[in-house]
Amino acid sequence: MTEDVTSIIADMTAKARAAARHVAGASDAQKAEALLAAAAAMRAAVPAILAANAKDMEAGAANGLSAAMLDRLKLDEARLEGVASAVEQVARLEDPVGKVIDRSERPNGLVMERVRVPVGVLAIIYESRPNVTADAAALGLRSGNAVILRGGSEAVNSNRAIHAAMVEGIVKAGLPADAVQLVPTQDRAAVGALLKAQGQIDMVIPRGGKSLVARVQDEARVPVLAHLDGICHTYVHAKADPAMAEAIAVNAKMRRTGICGATETLLIDQDYPEPSRLIGALLDAGCEVRADDMLMELDQRTVPADEEDWGTEYLEPIVSAKMVSGVDEAIEHIARYGSQHTESIITSDEAAAAQFLSGVDSAIVMHNASTQFADGGEFGLGAEIGIATGRLHARGPVALEGLTTYKWLVHGSGQTRP
Amino acid sequence: MTEDVTSIIADMTAKARAAARHVAGASDAQKAEALLAAAAAMRAAVPAILAANAKDMEAGAANGLSAAMLDRLKLDEARLEGVASAVEQVARLEDPVGKVIDRSERPNGLVMERVRVPVGVLAIIYESRPNVTADAAALGLRSGNAVILRGGSEAVNSNRAIHAAMVEGIVKAGLPADAVQLVPTQDRAAVGALLKAQGQIDMVIPRGGKSLVARVQDEARVPVLAHLDGICHTYVHAKADPAMAEAIAVNAKMRRTGICGATETLLIDQDYPEPSRLIGALLDAGCEVRADDMLMELDQRTVPADEEDWGTEYLEPIVSAKMVSGVDEAIEHIARYGSQHTESIITSDEAAAAQFLSGVDSAIVMHNASTQFADGGEFGLGAEIGIATGRLHARGPVALEGLTTYKWLVHGSGQTRP
Repeated sequence: MTEDVTSIIADMTAKARAAARHVAGASDAQKAEALLAAAAAMRAAVPAILAANAKDMEAGAANGLSAAMLDRLKLDEARLEGVASAVEQVARLEDPVGKVIDRSERPNGLVMERVRVPVGVLAIIYESRPNVTADAAALGLRSGNAVILRGGSEAVNSNRAIHAAMVEGIVKAGLPADAVQLVPTQDRAAVGALLKAQGQIDMVIPRGGKSLVARVQDEARVPVLAHLDGICHTYVHAKADPAMAEAIAVNAKMRRTGICGATETLLIDQDYPEPSRLIGALLDAGCEVRADDMLMELDQRTVPADEEDWGTEYLEPIVSAKMVSGVDEAIEHIARYGSQHTESIITSDEAAAAQFLSGVDSAIVMHNASTQFADGGEFGLGAEIGIATGRLHARGPVALEGLTTYKWLVHGSGQTRP
Repeated sequence: MTEDVTSIIADMTAKARAAARHVAGASDAQKAEALLAAAAAMRAAVPAILAANAKDMEAGAANGLSAAMLDRLKLDEARLEGVASAVEQVARLEDPVGKVIDRSERPNGLVMERVRVPVGVLAIIYESRPNVTADAAALGLRSGNAVILRGGSEAVNSNRAIHAAMVEGIVKAGLPADAVQLVPTQDRAAVGALLKAQGQIDMVIPRGGKSLVARVQDEARVPVLAHLDGICHTYVHAKADPAMAEAIAVNAKMRRTGICGATETLLIDQDYPEPSRLIGALLDAGCEVRADDMLMELDQRTVPADEEDWGTEYLEPIVSAKMVSGVDEAIEHIARYGSQHTESIITSDEAAAAQFLSGVDSAIVMHNASTQFADGGEFGLGAEIGIATGRLHARGPVALEGLTTYKWLVHGSGQTRP
């Protein structure tokens, strides 16, 4: 194989395009069978995958990866079992392909139908977690797409071992091995080549930190399904039930601070009766509260927030807190500082809730619920490829349907256009 | 106003963003009223618009525009009445905003709803036809978006006069004038600035010839809803009824040769019983037939096709014609040379039709109908902004729904995530 990255990628995309046409026509049963066989192959390959992962861990330690990075990289029997059963769960999801979106009959007798079809060839670019190799391959294949995977170099051996098992299952089900390809070179130029493969790659999905996503969005000449910041807001309205407000605010911030659906800013209505109890509950839960002047007076454990805090995704037990004059100011603040990810209003006032739900322009807007529910599984979508914060194609949690598009079928009986 | 193009565009996009939030919250009735008032204002302004158009025609003639270009540029009372009533038709279309796409209740009681919302700020970049100023503004506003229009310099006076009338109606209905803005400068740098306005413009829609669309796709750093070639195919299968095949083939090619839905390549099955009658019908209709060797033998009026013909969008009374061995070869040929726009199979064999409909990867696939039906109006969508040949967001004829996206609304009763 030539080491010329451009030709490697051109060869892979050509094979992917051919495989995509095959997979697009595969039956629901065949795609499900491929994933069940892949999960079985992964279980059979546990020793090999763990050996490969051990190599990556060794190299990672030698290269001074942080403990957190090493933990993301690490596989063990339990984690691998989780990966395999996640693939089986995707196999059991309903096939979106072929689903009729809508259908109408025209006065001239033509019947117009919109049916779901796969997007085509997906490129998924991700970082250290090797489980993404299996997750992304499973979701892409289940929705009838061909997938090109580009994992992080620190997980190269783990990714190759998992990919080999996936392909074994895919081939066993009679689908082409090229339906799921792993970029063989770690040369960063490969990413650039994928991002510029107009007409060969139909959609790029970056999964990783801000810098990766930003680079992909910046360089890509093909459509990107991207997920940027999750600067999520919880707005406690004047008519919020204090017990509910405290339970939701603490959960929204503290259940897991490192996920994109974690609340980063708490907006408290100036007429909310129990602001100090609310702030206190977060402080008692071990959260640092960076407050504006009004709220700082309520609890001496708070620290002052500066302008930068309102636009910061902490992903840590830190929350910025601001007092607002009402729903309008809450909506204004979110429009100015938010990232159009997930916001929630806590209130028993239906009119205020309706104003917030329609006035906030985010992928997910909630009423009386924790922003930590921003997750494809919680939405009943099964596994998710990610949460899209862009405006087009798919928004919010993206699962199988978001990896499809549609085409129009027109059924005639000889109609010509006058 | 400064002539610094970048600051002009930055100022326009900021105003558009503010207006977009206002229009997104406007009621169905208010948006309809704005368009009806705009149509009325346009009728009242007929003399002013025609005077402005006369200036453009004069300049166009002086600049040596072709007769075809001058005809596209020309307005008269009848054409203006058509433009005004088209705006009224858009006013009468159903408002897509707020429509619930789907709704589900989770075991924990959370109710997930997907509702249609406007895309936000649209930039529409178009060429000489001044009617696009009204059409695009009407469709964008009807679907709750703010619109920035950039028309061709040859129509600058006509566009300004039509835009002024549109804004008059919009303001009369209590919507912000900034909801529909026309780029005031003809400096080409303005287009570049629009195409790079990430985060300020949500979608760019080019309407014009290949070179315009290609430039937009190449330069854009914001999502593009594009329509490239319409290299449409009509495949006459072995089991096609000859009378139907001839009627559809002649209509698909000759009804109007200049539209994107016109058939450019005719594929004839080797087992179709009446190929020479079919070729003859096209020749008799005044169509040049560029045929492969097999078909050339059938009629001496045909001329030889070369490799380039299979990938050419003639937009003229010329058709390329090829004999194929069956449905598989037809699908292969279309995959190789087509532009994923519109293809049709003519057959009485349901299995062959099903194979073609599922195997052809185009925005529109037809059975026993003329490719000239590729039009939003014929699909019952009302006016269309264009026919998208990309794969994501919206495909095929794009009308109001294609100018919307969705957001998730989550209705809770205090749920926190375990």
